Amino acid sequence: MSLPKVLLTGFEPFGGEQTNPSWEAVELACERLSLPTTAVELPVSFADSALQLREAIATAQPDLVLCLGQAAGRAALTIERVALNLIDAPIPDNAQAQPIDEPVVAQGPAAYFAALPVKACVEASRAVGVPAAASLTAGTYVCNSTFYYLSHLIATEYPSLKGGFIHVPLSPKQGIDGGQATLDPSAVATALVAIVHTALRVDTDIASTGGQTH
Amino acid sequence: MSLPKVLLTGFEPFGGEQTNPSWEAVELACERLSLPTTAVELPVSFADSALQLREAIATAQPDLVLCLGQAAGRAALTIERVALNLIDAPIPDNAQAQPIDEPVVAQGPAAYFAALPVKACVEASRAVGVPAAASLTAGTYVCNSTFYYLSHLIATEYPSLKGGFIHVPLSPKQGIDGGQATLDPSAVATALVAIVHTALRVDTDIASTGGQTH
Amino acid sequence: MSLPKVLLTGFEPFGGEQTNPSWEAVELACERLSLPTTAVELPVSFADSALQLREAIATAQPDLVLCLGQAAGRAALTIERVALNLIDAPIPDNAQAQPIDEPVVAQGPAAYFAALPVKACVEASRAVGVPAAASLTAGTYVCNSTFYYLSHLIATEYPSLKGGFIHVPLSPKQGIDGGQATLDPSAVATALVAIVHTALRVDTDIASTGGQTH
Amino acid sequence: MSLPKVLLTGFEPFGGEQTNPSWEAVELACERLSLPTTAVELPVSFADSALQLREAIATAQPDLVLCLGQAAGRAALTIERVALNLIDAPIPDNAQAQPIDEPVVAQGPAAYFAALPVKACVEASRAVGVPAAASLTAGTYVCNSTFYYLSHLIATEYPSLKGGFIHVPLSPKQGIDGGQATLDPSAVATALVAIVHTALRVDTDIASTGGQTH
Repeated sequence: MSLPKVLLTGFEPFGGEQTNPSWEAVELACERLSLPTTAVELPVSFADSALQLREAIATAQPDLVLCLGQAAGRAALTIERVALNLIDAPIPDNAQAQPIDEPVVAQGPAAYFAALPVKACVEASRAVGVPAAASLTAGTYVCNSTFYYLSHLIATEYPSLKGGFIHVPLSPKQGIDGGQATLDPSAVATALVAIVHTALRVDTDIASTGGQTH
Repeated sequence: MSLPKVLLTGFEPFGGEQTNPSWEAVELACERLSLPTTAVELPVSFADSALQLREAIATAQPDLVLCLGQAAGRAALTIERVALNLIDAPIPDNAQAQPIDEPVVAQGPAAYFAALPVKACVEASRAVGVPAAASLTAGTYVCNSTFYYLSHLIATEYPSLKGGFIHVPLSPKQGIDGGQATLDPSAVATALVAIVHTALRVDTDIASTGGQTH
Repeated sequence: MSLPKVLLTGFEPFGGEQTNPSWEAVELACERLSLPTTAVELPVSFADSALQLREAIATAQPDLVLCLGQAAGRAALTIERVALNLIDAPIPDNAQAQPIDEPVVAQGPAAYFAALPVKACVEASRAVGVPAAASLTAGTYVCNSTFYYLSHLIATEYPSLKGGFIHVPLSPKQGIDGGQATLDPSAVATALVAIVHTALRVDTDIASTGGQTH
Repeated sequence: MSLPKVLLTGFEPFGGEQTNPSWEAVELACERLSLPTTAVELPVSFADSALQLREAIATAQPDLVLCLGQAAGRAALTIERVALNLIDAPIPDNAQAQPIDEPVVAQGPAAYFAALPVKACVEASRAVGVPAAASLTAGTYVCNSTFYYLSHLIATEYPSLKGGFIHVPLSPKQGIDGGQATLDPSAVATALVAIVHTALRVDTDIASTGGQTH
């Protein structure tokens, strides 16, 4: 019996940052995972991130895809529940594109729910000591468009693939002046390893209290 | 030629509050609108809010429905872009129901985009001096379920109806201790009047820069 | 018997803003106060604000001085409890001075407590429906240096004078994009009138629960 | 030549928490410091923390005292600049005392500045990769009263002693649900070791840009 294959993606830096904690965490998690794992650093580009993700999936033929992205201001690892078919860029991407109110996939549905047991993954992170929560919005920038594109691939081409998106706080070096919450990429990697195993193992999500009033 | 008809809804108090600024604002806006307007105070109940909304629409036969709800902690009037087919109650509703991870409408799509020119409505509020922004999440409580149910009615039964959801900050009396942002229901009503006229008039939304990185 | 005299000060705009809600509120309060009141718009200048405040006090011979300043991000009117003998400018003042770690008054004490019944003033604001709280820091910019200089004048030259400092949130037009809490200068003026009367009347502050764990 | 002696204090848990990250960090730092160090866990009691601090100083005769406390919601290690002569307890202490608006030391000055090169200590923390900032308020609870009492002892009995107060964020296990910023006590300890050496070595603080507008 063959081991399940995992594809992890992070992003290159954007928004004036020198590093991106999503990619740092992915690299660290790869070293620690005992499963066959492919790591890909995606460009912060609406056009190219989707293409490279598609290619990586076609090549690696993974059983699980987890895409990670940076979310300045968030205090914990947040596992996204919803991918929106909406691009609305508050700042240009790294290729200088700044689309406003366009779909990720023309004629695609308004949204997909993550093909992941989100609450079980949240609990897996907490169980290894890393603060985590579910999130209801991945924004309308490249993180969300990548997440939507992944979800669309799963829905239309890879029905047995599991996959989702995780936002991570700034790293300590990015938030060294103390103005925003930070989380060490090493801790993110610890959580990521636990989440990989949980996502592969759990098919029906747990029914823990969660949600948000608004 | 007949005037367009408007249905405005707010909610009863919940979560230990004595008042709900969404209903206060709706009542004030009704007094100021020169259009035939129906105002309905919905229960904070997953089951009953949908039923009463359906009945109110059937009775009033409106051209526009705007549902308002309270969002403690938000600093401005926020116009929701996305209704999710997800109920996940962090606290019981006023009928003591606390569903976890259930759909609003079985077999409904994951989400609907608001049947409103959201950015034009945001600008309409700002133009009358009331801080406003678009929002990507209405939560997973009764506000969202009401918004989703409205959107589903529009999609399946009332294709020419316009409608959406607006979250409003706490009122000053609710936030009198200064711990959270507040907005006067009278200012919300001022914005609401402007939004009603804009929503009725504008069919294609404006393409202003907006969106969120996450 | 003569009426008590009041001096109210606000600041000119700074930090790229076109207006300063502290001055807007002072002007509105002046129109509404039935006491002899002087209003002065102070420059956002470490050097000149102190000079102009000294001159205004010498001219007006007030019984009460309330200085107001803008505090972006705060959600309510905040009445300052402590003036620090510390200038540490995060941005240059409007005269392009940016002192680092200098005293407001050489050889002055580290701090003064406000010569005001702060908690009674907080309650006075809340009683007229305007969110308010006590604050433990006025920062280290021109607001604080003006407050410290006022407190030093009271301690050394005007022992019977009452006086303090009040920070106010951004006005709605400053925060029109919804990113930060706002408060209408008219509401601030309503609170200010109530606070003036309370400050003049109350000599011993009330003992309400307050304070902060950190 | 004898090595300088260090006294580090943390607090016991309070406010319903099971642990206090200030004490966890002190214990870890003690293991790593190559200087003679005494560690004391202070009670969260206005009356007893001062007594035990006095006794610990008398016994250890340290050259440097750093007291640490927990500050839920802060995103970084914050080094306090100002100790206030004010007790105003928002919640009872662990001995069920809840004083309102009392001085820490009757007839003491309104405030003391920290007897520490605060900005150099902030830089020392950042230099080892741990987010840090200076803070202008330590609150009005037991943290501040302990800090004020320490400062008063330095001013009146131990003029050559250096000392100050550092607030630390919640630990990851305290903030496991992701609602508030966290910092690992091990990272706090890393910063603490660097700060100890900097505080002992630096007599005149650096003049870096800092401060706050409010």
